[in-house]
Amino acid sequence: MEGKEEDVKLGANKFSERQPIGTTAQSQHKDYKEPPPAPFFEPGELKSWSFYRAGIAEFVATFLFLYITVLTVMGVVKSPTKCGTVGIQGIAWAFGGMIFALVYCTAGISGGHINPAVTFGLFLARKLSLTRAVFYIVMQCLGAICGAGVVKGFQTGLYQANGGGANVVAPGYTKGDGLGAEIIGTFVLVYTVFSATDAKRNARDSHVPILAPLPIGFAVFLVHLATIPITGTGINPARSLGAAIIYNKHHAWEDHWIFWVGPFIGAALAALYHQVVIRAIPFKSKS
Amino acid sequence: MEGKEEDVKLGANKFSERQPIGTTAQSQHKDYKEPPPAPFFEPGELKSWSFYRAGIAEFVATFLFLYITVLTVMGVVKSPTKCGTVGIQGIAWAFGGMIFALVYCTAGISGGHINPAVTFGLFLARKLSLTRAVFYIVMQCLGAICGAGVVKGFQTGLYQANGGGANVVAPGYTKGDGLGAEIIGTFVLVYTVFSATDAKRNARDSHVPILAPLPIGFAVFLVHLATIPITGTGINPARSLGAAIIYNKHHAWEDHWIFWVGPFIGAALAALYHQVVIRAIPFKSKS
Amino acid sequence: MEGKEEDVKLGANKFSERQPIGTTAQSQHKDYKEPPPAPFFEPGELKSWSFYRAGIAEFVATFLFLYITVLTVMGVVKSPTKCGTVGIQGIAWAFGGMIFALVYCTAGISGGHINPAVTFGLFLARKLSLTRAVFYIVMQCLGAICGAGVVKGFQTGLYQANGGGANVVAPGYTKGDGLGAEIIGTFVLVYTVFSATDAKRNARDSHVPILAPLPIGFAVFLVHLATIPITGTGINPARSLGAAIIYNKHHAWEDHWIFWVGPFIGAALAALYHQVVIRAIPFKSKS
Amino acid sequence: MEGKEEDVKLGANKFSERQPIGTTAQSQHKDYKEPPPAPFFEPGELKSWSFYRAGIAEFVATFLFLYITVLTVMGVVKSPTKCGTVGIQGIAWAFGGMIFALVYCTAGISGGHINPAVTFGLFLARKLSLTRAVFYIVMQCLGAICGAGVVKGFQTGLYQANGGGANVVAPGYTKGDGLGAEIIGTFVLVYTVFSATDAKRNARDSHVPILAPLPIGFAVFLVHLATIPITGTGINPARSLGAAIIYNKHHAWEDHWIFWVGPFIGAALAALYHQVVIRAIPFKSKS
Repeated sequence: MEGKEEDVKLGANKFSERQPIGTTAQSQHKDYKEPPPAPFFEPGELKSWSFYRAGIAEFVATFLFLYITVLTVMGVVKSPTKCGTVGIQGIAWAFGGMIFALVYCTAGISGGHINPAVTFGLFLARKLSLTRAVFYIVMQCLGAICGAGVVKGFQTGLYQANGGGANVVAPGYTKGDGLGAEIIGTFVLVYTVFSATDAKRNARDSHVPILAPLPIGFAVFLVHLATIPITGTGINPARSLGAAIIYNKHHAWEDHWIFWVGPFIGAALAALYHQVVIRAIPFKSKS
Repeated sequence: MEGKEEDVKLGANKFSERQPIGTTAQSQHKDYKEPPPAPFFEPGELKSWSFYRAGIAEFVATFLFLYITVLTVMGVVKSPTKCGTVGIQGIAWAFGGMIFALVYCTAGISGGHINPAVTFGLFLARKLSLTRAVFYIVMQCLGAICGAGVVKGFQTGLYQANGGGANVVAPGYTKGDGLGAEIIGTFVLVYTVFSATDAKRNARDSHVPILAPLPIGFAVFLVHLATIPITGTGINPARSLGAAIIYNKHHAWEDHWIFWVGPFIGAALAALYHQVVIRAIPFKSKS
Repeated sequence: MEGKEEDVKLGANKFSERQPIGTTAQSQHKDYKEPPPAPFFEPGELKSWSFYRAGIAEFVATFLFLYITVLTVMGVVKSPTKCGTVGIQGIAWAFGGMIFALVYCTAGISGGHINPAVTFGLFLARKLSLTRAVFYIVMQCLGAICGAGVVKGFQTGLYQANGGGANVVAPGYTKGDGLGAEIIGTFVLVYTVFSATDAKRNARDSHVPILAPLPIGFAVFLVHLATIPITGTGINPARSLGAAIIYNKHHAWEDHWIFWVGPFIGAALAALYHQVVIRAIPFKSKS
Repeated sequence: MEGKEEDVKLGANKFSERQPIGTTAQSQHKDYKEPPPAPFFEPGELKSWSFYRAGIAEFVATFLFLYITVLTVMGVVKSPTKCGTVGIQGIAWAFGGMIFALVYCTAGISGGHINPAVTFGLFLARKLSLTRAVFYIVMQCLGAICGAGVVKGFQTGLYQANGGGANVVAPGYTKGDGLGAEIIGTFVLVYTVFSATDAKRNARDSHVPILAPLPIGFAVFLVHLATIPITGTGINPARSLGAAIIYNKHHAWEDHWIFWVGPFIGAALAALYHQVVIRAIPFKSKS
């Protein structure tokens, strides 16, 4: 019986792992240290400059995220023919590319969430305290509102006439379709976040976290390619809230719950999948 | 005579290798360990949690792969003008990008195949046991069926009216053309998988496997750019089967054999090329 | 109290940092060396071949940058229907992709600025001397003029008829909108440059600077996706100057000040944000 | 006086180098070994299996390169409206993406040239012997002819009717424009190859060559974005020759010299720039 796992062996399986069913994959001989679960409340955090700095970084990143993406959406939707714009594919690149660049830039400061669903998923996996999770989500929402507000400031009339980048379920789809699309889409994103930032991988190969922003950004890009025709793609409640508040018309608010419930369910499922299947924590051996 | 090879020297050749013709490139002084060939049946595997976890990971990855890609295809084909969609190029990005992200995420769990042709090619090179290969292929096909099924659930009428993402040979091409396109396309993919996960490279430079998902994903993207007009691009029998079962109309089944025979021939040729030309195994020296 | 910071921890926060508010984040126990601020005038530089080589590298890089990007712009704008061209998205890729490739190629020679706003931002952070900053900006502007000039040489009539790639504020936007778009766009770029080249990250993980060109190139791509409809996207005064001088028509010069004032304000804000919030330098402890 | 250079310092200059003008940058205290120049004729090579293996790898890579790219071109040009295809931008991705993937896959076997202009440039810099350079160029041309031939086999009528992917100077441009575009385009490519594979960088940071295929592939993509409207973009004589031989119509042969002379001049200029300016070899000190 050997508990040492081979990780990140691409393409081929090496069968070095002979872990009996029902025990955890990470019990013995491991060459990495699992960080202890974050406490719910961590009083020391509130006196630390790095706590507030992380919140500011989340605010600025979500501000820039909404600014660039909603401006790109406006440039495309206001044009009668999409051929003279960057197109729907360009919108998908804007969302995915911004997440790539911003996760790269803020990972070392705040962890690079820029999305309440990601914060929620990581909180469920006990990667950050409740205090910090709530603080991040508040800062993300404020940043998103400001980012969308600046875009509206550039072109108020056009903004209101063209939907303001707000997420709604498209005609021809039921609210259930929209909710399902948000759940699976957020699952793809948060599953990628968990896989790319796994502590085992970090231990084996210290530059994995450096590369992680690329698949995370790609996950956002891909979900947009698939679900823009259904909901405009939320998978980020701060992004949906920011656009909805600035746009502030009835039909944007009607579907708004979908863009909080869907992402939070998707993030919870991804956290569950990672902890139960990939890390096998329920089967943790006693020793 | 010096058997130590210089690997991954980009751009320039250093001529350090003076291996006589007819002997293997990897006989002496090598600084990496070739893993022994996987046995055909490995009874211990079936009692290992990691074996089942790998199968679940292949199922989930292929499910997400079909879900995102077929949904993207549906969004493009249902629109009368492609300019208001992500376009054919967006479809190619969806396939290639998902393979990039999913290989990155599952490489450490199952090897990140997500494709029966890849599993078949690696099995031929004795990188995994027959038991594991069959288990993976079954899980990949089940995942693909479920993924396409969810997309149909969103929009049954549109799905059936627009071909359901199933692979067929396009009008104007013979079945021979379609088969050829699948063979060469899968060769490109499996050749990239072998090159990117070569044991020699892994030994020299441990982060090669970390970067490998990028060229593998790009290979899928590129084959789609070239052969979507011919067959819709299979190069992945699970993807073709999933779409065909959920779509389930006569003309999807008529060409279906092409999307199993072609990829398996292409994968076998890539395995042969890698073992005979690149690794020179037939010329293995006795010593 | 512990001043050692955990950096580049993606996804999760590890709370290892308990730095009291009001002190700098980098005062104690740090495992990296902050380079001393560059002097304003460094007489030794002027006798060093590497100083002139760096200037030549900036000239050549900016020349190639303008040549490829303005030629791409010309190919798109001269076509009545954008569908038969690489499209507006292709223009954004040309700008972002060239910055990626050129930063990768010249980083080791000159630092890879290729943009007076980047040079200005790094000068404000005391990363290079005033002598060098002025020399770089002059060489960048000369390279940009030559690059745009070669494109005009290919097709003088078409060049003049199609705007010559010069930056102007589009109809329907005020000059204030254009200035705002340039400020925030340049903030995104210079903020990415600072984050990606932070000395702390370099110390911990020496390949971060190797990867940095990718997010920097993506930042340029993303700002183009968003602001091409507003100003054509400057965020690089050398690029705007080169196109304006070669195009040389009245309406290109009328808005030209925006493409110097906007980028310099944006770069200054990014430098300020990085020094005050991220590095907390104003709160530097005495010891 | 200090000869030790700081390399790959992104963004900021550290001024550690105080090399007097007129001496080489690489004379003293260097921590990397410059490989000796390759001899013109290396008789031992011809008896080495690795020599022939490298040639086969160049043949296969150039075959796959032409197959995927010409097939992509055919899919786009045969369609009356480009919106229902991957578009001109998709063609640029096919060329750049294939170079990225193929350089990644063959770098360890042959150096990953896949282009006679690259082979020529590296030969001028004495990175490989004349024997090897000639062998590579022959194998590249044979591979290109076979790759284009397979595409013609799929759809002979359409192939001949749609130009067969052959490079010609577009109407409205002079032959001088075409030659200039090929020279500067190849300069961009070969300059990126030299910068990305510089021996100094390899010594400092061993994973640079691993990352190098990405900027090299991007360089090819970018030159295609810019010059497809002028010449269809050659910058690779094997690619131009393969398409011309299989297409074999008068007007393809008329301009064919441009696609050999242009790339070879561009490659020579890039080699010159790298040796004279970046490496300062003419000023090599005596000691």
